Amino acid sequence: MATIDLNADLGEGFGPWRMGDDAAMLEIVTSASLACGGHAGDPGTMFQALRLAAERGVSIGAHPGYADREGFGRRVIPMEPSEIARMVAAQTGALLGVAALAGARVGFVKPHGALSNLAAADEDVARAVAGAVAALPGGLAVLAISGTALERAARAAGLRVFSEIFADRAYLPNGQLVPRTQPGAVLHDADEVAERLIGFLDSGRMPVQGGDPIPLAAESICIHGDTPGAVAMARALRARLAAAGVTLSPFLPA
Amino acid sequence: MATIDLNADLGEGFGPWRMGDDAAMLEIVTSASLACGGHAGDPGTMFQALRLAAERGVSIGAHPGYADREGFGRRVIPMEPSEIARMVAAQTGALLGVAALAGARVGFVKPHGALSNLAAADEDVARAVAGAVAALPGGLAVLAISGTALERAARAAGLRVFSEIFADRAYLPNGQLVPRTQPGAVLHDADEVAERLIGFLDSGRMPVQGGDPIPLAAESICIHGDTPGAVAMARALRARLAAAGVTLSPFLPA
Amino acid sequence: MATIDLNADLGEGFGPWRMGDDAAMLEIVTSASLACGGHAGDPGTMFQALRLAAERGVSIGAHPGYADREGFGRRVIPMEPSEIARMVAAQTGALLGVAALAGARVGFVKPHGALSNLAAADEDVARAVAGAVAALPGGLAVLAISGTALERAARAAGLRVFSEIFADRAYLPNGQLVPRTQPGAVLHDADEVAERLIGFLDSGRMPVQGGDPIPLAAESICIHGDTPGAVAMARALRARLAAAGVTLSPFLPA
Amino acid sequence: MATIDLNADLGEGFGPWRMGDDAAMLEIVTSASLACGGHAGDPGTMFQALRLAAERGVSIGAHPGYADREGFGRRVIPMEPSEIARMVAAQTGALLGVAALAGARVGFVKPHGALSNLAAADEDVARAVAGAVAALPGGLAVLAISGTALERAARAAGLRVFSEIFADRAYLPNGQLVPRTQPGAVLHDADEVAERLIGFLDSGRMPVQGGDPIPLAAESICIHGDTPGAVAMARALRARLAAAGVTLSPFLPA
Repeated sequence: MATIDLNADLGEGFGPWRMGDDAAMLEIVTSASLACGGHAGDPGTMFQALRLAAERGVSIGAHPGYADREGFGRRVIPMEPSEIARMVAAQTGALLGVAALAGARVGFVKPHGALSNLAAADEDVARAVAGAVAALPGGLAVLAISGTALERAARAAGLRVFSEIFADRAYLPNGQLVPRTQPGAVLHDADEVAERLIGFLDSGRMPVQGGDPIPLAAESICIHGDTPGAVAMARALRARLAAAGVTLSPFLPA
Repeated sequence: MATIDLNADLGEGFGPWRMGDDAAMLEIVTSASLACGGHAGDPGTMFQALRLAAERGVSIGAHPGYADREGFGRRVIPMEPSEIARMVAAQTGALLGVAALAGARVGFVKPHGALSNLAAADEDVARAVAGAVAALPGGLAVLAISGTALERAARAAGLRVFSEIFADRAYLPNGQLVPRTQPGAVLHDADEVAERLIGFLDSGRMPVQGGDPIPLAAESICIHGDTPGAVAMARALRARLAAAGVTLSPFLPA
Repeated sequence: MATIDLNADLGEGFGPWRMGDDAAMLEIVTSASLACGGHAGDPGTMFQALRLAAERGVSIGAHPGYADREGFGRRVIPMEPSEIARMVAAQTGALLGVAALAGARVGFVKPHGALSNLAAADEDVARAVAGAVAALPGGLAVLAISGTALERAARAAGLRVFSEIFADRAYLPNGQLVPRTQPGAVLHDADEVAERLIGFLDSGRMPVQGGDPIPLAAESICIHGDTPGAVAMARALRARLAAAGVTLSPFLPA
Repeated sequence: MATIDLNADLGEGFGPWRMGDDAAMLEIVTSASLACGGHAGDPGTMFQALRLAAERGVSIGAHPGYADREGFGRRVIPMEPSEIARMVAAQTGALLGVAALAGARVGFVKPHGALSNLAAADEDVARAVAGAVAALPGGLAVLAISGTALERAARAAGLRVFSEIFADRAYLPNGQLVPRTQPGAVLHDADEVAERLIGFLDSGRMPVQGGDPIPLAAESICIHGDTPGAVAMARALRARLAAAGVTLSPFLPA
């Protein structure tokens, strides 16, 4: 039977503000990428999310992003690659520091939002991110999208790389996501999402818009934690996968 | 002949703003406590200060403080000890992360400003700071003021503790500093400062206001890096100590 | 029949984060105090809240607080009264600026959180806040708690002052609130809250813990907008007051 | 004899950090554009700069910029024009609020850094800035560069517009500045700077790289306040202009 990881981006509150329901999501996912105080997160939110994840056996990653809270890391802030490397090192280091206090282990890094998009497309940014991860202690892996510049740069830096696919996003024949501005880009029906993923896990091929299913590498399925209905969608997906005999297990031990 | 360390708090710029002249001070001191992005500092200032310190053989400490840039960490922000521990872990972790990228080693932690004052006086806060340092990897030491709650808490946590005295501050018979609001609290004359320190290094006793010289433990002399004339004062002090046969050497290897 | 205002503190999101349901609350209240970018709020949240409030005929106030997002303005940041005055002027000015763009009118100022508590108790802080309000253009009024230093300072500064009572908080015989740490400090039952307020509007006297009902001045009832169940409580209260023949109307025209 | 204004961007410190020497520059310039808490500035720096400027009869403008302190407003933060308008309204409003407290009058708006560059080139951004200025109370003017989108948008919005030229920047035949990356872009010699400006004030024509002098509109000369040697350059320029019989006077009354 197929085995795969289910991951979500969590710990994205700040101060008095919450984003999604971390506690509920951490009952469902097998891996979690936690905000590091850049686009979201503060020492308190990091500690709580790390502690909860560790208690529940969820595998933990760092989720660094542009230090732009007002824009939630979704805007590209013009920075040199060397500045990006320092930012990723500082944010991931902050999470590692709080994890040491919380008795939790951080095993991988997955960039957030606009930084993720840029690191997927821009070789220099990808090398900067991979270089920062490689410099940090602990043998951190990278969670990336298959076929991206970040995947290549991480492999070139000698890092372990794991690939994710998106539970609720439609794909194009070239393996990229259908842009959110186009119809059908986001899937909202839990049954449809589950059906598609079970088919992919069976066949290794993902349906795409305007073409035949394509092969995709995937050690993890990414689900959203911060949208209305996220918890219900995640719970339904987990149940459907289990019913289909899929084993959910983190790609790295917790 | 006497041997002692000379330390300053550096890397306290932020974005476009500088605080003092790090490059000049790093030619003079043997240890430097670097801001960690809380009261001051950002990934770029951390990297530059770490790189410069490492190149010059200066021993490096983390200098966490209240995350209050507008107040430069000089205002007590009401926080629970547990929150303080998480803040210290996150900030020190951030510096450790950037240090890994810069190829520099961080050996100790010295709290900044209002956090330092509170950790000196409040046992719970002292325990929180010491606990965070003890949880972090790398066997970090603590640089504290002799006789403070922080020194006791750090020793109780099994940490190595080094003590500092202040080059330009007058002392009271109980070993505490004369408050800045009182006359004579701050010494401005480099000769007087040097004379007093040389006497202390000879005798182990520090002159105080209104009493006989007192014994003080000290592995390091703290000089300011951020005041007008700081570099000139530091340079003069270093020259006078050298002329008196004092060896300047970091309390921890760089 | 009695007429009174119903106010809530709104516009307290920041960047991607929301706090409560502004749109729903603005269907219920007759006045709203809007965060000004200090403890919460940014130009976008200010604009949206101002526009919605203006469209719904809700009277608008500025809600300045300590510029401490991580602490949501609930921590006292040590500041001189002169610094507090400048902070209140800057924050209120920011809201006035966005209001000009949104075509909305700001009529009053109500301090937030720890600043409100301090201005209620500390004459110097109260004078600083009142002085800032008096200096600003537009003839702004102050919404305060009856019997506080802020009320006195605002009157002394020649400002119009309106008083608020709290819908869901128990009172002491001296007119102060029962501290949140004590049992019964917060009322959770909408019926009890409504009953108590209708009794107060009838008699001018408020029930207190451990004593006879006391007279309280009130042009407005403050309800929370940011707690779970806030909208349901507000809706139920509004319905009960209407059923009892109470007219809800802003103390200042929108 | 010619009359012209001399302006600088001031009040660009933050918290403990200073940028240039505001007090010295305010003895030299006739107008000052003051940071509004976005790219730089806080209520305290605003108040001090406003107070000093008012005392010295210096005409005051607001200097809003991207709310990106780490990048000092020199990075384009991706924002919708509507978001830019709200940001400009909030920041300018904040300065107006503090000015009311300081007893100072703000007469114009001049965008900062990357926002200025974008508003010069992008018609939508220019309209957003001009629209925000037009919505604010007080009949604010705009200080812009002749021939830019901002100048056109401000005139179209019915605003008074004044033009500035740069004391120490070389021009191209099309009236734009030589990019900083090209040789000769920045003039460092006070005599050369003064000579060129006196020639321009006599003839109405500015020397350019690779062409004949061109006519430029200018009610103000912009000098830098934040570079090393800025005060000396400004003082020398002022003296040379005075010696040549040029009268320095603000384009708007202080």
